[in-house]
Amino acid sequence: MASNGTNGQDRRSGFLEIYARLKSELLQDPAFDFTEDGRQWIERMLDYTVPGGKLNRGLSVVDSYKLLKGNELSEEEFLLASALGWCIEWVGMIAVNDGILLRNHIPRILKRHFKGKPYYVDLLDLFNEVEFQTASGQMLDLITTHEGETDLSKYKLPVYNRIVQYKTAYYSFYLPVACALLMSGENLDNFIEVKNILIEMGTYFQVQDDYLDCFGDPEVIGKIGTDIEDFKCSWMVVQALDRANENQMKVISENYGKADQTCITRVKAVYKDLDLQGVFSEFERTSFERLISSIEAQPSKAVQEVLKSFLAKIYKRQK
Amino acid sequence: MASNGTNGQDRRSGFLEIYARLKSELLQDPAFDFTEDGRQWIERMLDYTVPGGKLNRGLSVVDSYKLLKGNELSEEEFLLASALGWCIEWVGMIAVNDGILLRNHIPRILKRHFKGKPYYVDLLDLFNEVEFQTASGQMLDLITTHEGETDLSKYKLPVYNRIVQYKTAYYSFYLPVACALLMSGENLDNFIEVKNILIEMGTYFQVQDDYLDCFGDPEVIGKIGTDIEDFKCSWMVVQALDRANENQMKVISENYGKADQTCITRVKAVYKDLDLQGVFSEFERTSFERLISSIEAQPSKAVQEVLKSFLAKIYKRQK
Repeated sequence: MASNGTNGQDRRSGFLEIYARLKSELLQDPAFDFTEDGRQWIERMLDYTVPGGKLNRGLSVVDSYKLLKGNELSEEEFLLASALGWCIEWVGMIAVNDGILLRNHIPRILKRHFKGKPYYVDLLDLFNEVEFQTASGQMLDLITTHEGETDLSKYKLPVYNRIVQYKTAYYSFYLPVACALLMSGENLDNFIEVKNILIEMGTYFQVQDDYLDCFGDPEVIGKIGTDIEDFKCSWMVVQALDRANENQMKVISENYGKADQTCITRVKAVYKDLDLQGVFSEFERTSFERLISSIEAQPSKAVQEVLKSFLAKIYKRQK
Repeated sequence: MASNGTNGQDRRSGFLEIYARLKSELLQDPAFDFTEDGRQWIERMLDYTVPGGKLNRGLSVVDSYKLLKGNELSEEEFLLASALGWCIEWVGMIAVNDGILLRNHIPRILKRHFKGKPYYVDLLDLFNEVEFQTASGQMLDLITTHEGETDLSKYKLPVYNRIVQYKTAYYSFYLPVACALLMSGENLDNFIEVKNILIEMGTYFQVQDDYLDCFGDPEVIGKIGTDIEDFKCSWMVVQALDRANENQMKVISENYGKADQTCITRVKAVYKDLDLQGVFSEFERTSFERLISSIEAQPSKAVQEVLKSFLAKIYKRQK
């Protein structure tokens, strides 16, 4: 294996080959359902950020491990030592900001309180996975809004569902229940259907949020919605675009994303003409029925109770 | 235990008590040597960011776990479920940015390539700890420069050493060797002295960096140093402030941190008058001797080789 040679140039190029492999694995990561645009954004960001430097830190894992082992590395050992080396290069590239410091508090809390529990490593994996999904969902939201500003036809239901699933549903609905299941000694692999139910509940919750942003009572929800003027990929605009005739389409595209009160009123008038309030009621009714029957198909009564307690908190909420 | 009651208000206040506990633990975390200013900065940032919302996600871990368990929680169980709940609130507060996405790639790589290895959980703990130390060190650097701009006397050697240790030495020197040791089946608890040696080497490396920024050949180091105009807490200015007479002190405080070429020349003239080149040579000589004797006191020849290979790369480097 030439790329794993002792020659400095070979060693560096072998190490860079592993970068290409890790990058391609990250871009295919099944924990997030990438769009092609999202994939390109990350690839450019990685290529710009990660492999530019001298790579001394990363290469020194390979060198040190070789010295400790006392002879040449197998292909597998070279891959593993290089993977760790690249993780170190990644660490070095993380810019300082309160967000990074904040997220570092999570493993500190977990280590202090859970190290030694049989489910400690599952907790670490769970938080890492969900944080990754949440950050990726936020990125997808940014990219989508960016594109929507020049081409409103990008706002379609599957795009909307993907953003909501990753940005909100995993951490707000799945993560709390998954934590409680791990503490109860359960194996999360046996609760895939529970995860699906919670993600659907999270989607239902976000649709309500979008509806209330537009038609909720500001006195009750405690704020004045701004999704229309902010050009958000909201469930409301997605449904309107799906139903609008040519004339209504023109009104939306001329008035969406403008802070002017007249524009906002025009968009809302189209929503009313399309009876989005009725569409929402129907969505709420069918979602609730489907969720209830999925929940009642769960074998464990305790799990059913957990899921119903979540559903009860959000069904027909006004705020 | 009133705070663990079923009453909504009690439940919320009990949950908030756990926040206060977790915060105080984080502010006392022995993995980072906090200054009082750093502690206040984080405390304000946390109080502003974390506990403001509805806390539904966090509280739902406690509620779900109670349902799964089927009866009231012990004090210990309430603490654990609340700690996980707070970790979820923390996740929600992490703002989107490429840094967060980047750092999320590390556990993805580790999971894909190391899950199932006996040292997998040690790798997760190691990367979490060092990332935390690096982010904290960067924060300390920011705070110190911020304060130094109004009061240059804050730039003292212990402050400098602490920044360098956390911001650079852990991830650049300790982390690569720790990774190689874990892959070799070693327990890191047995390598505390190796860690100390690597941190000293990291400090030595950063001092060289600061020296070269000021007196290195721009043709060789490939950039023109800017530490003086950037108001950096550099080893050079720390040594100068420690040795300057009243007049030299005046020159430094009037000219440090200014982009004007005349100011930079005046500061460098003071450095030369104080023979900081000689001070640096002496530092380099004694550091090298102390490092060599610590390395040769190591029981394992292979570990000695690893450490010497690091030292050889940096001793008397010109770039």
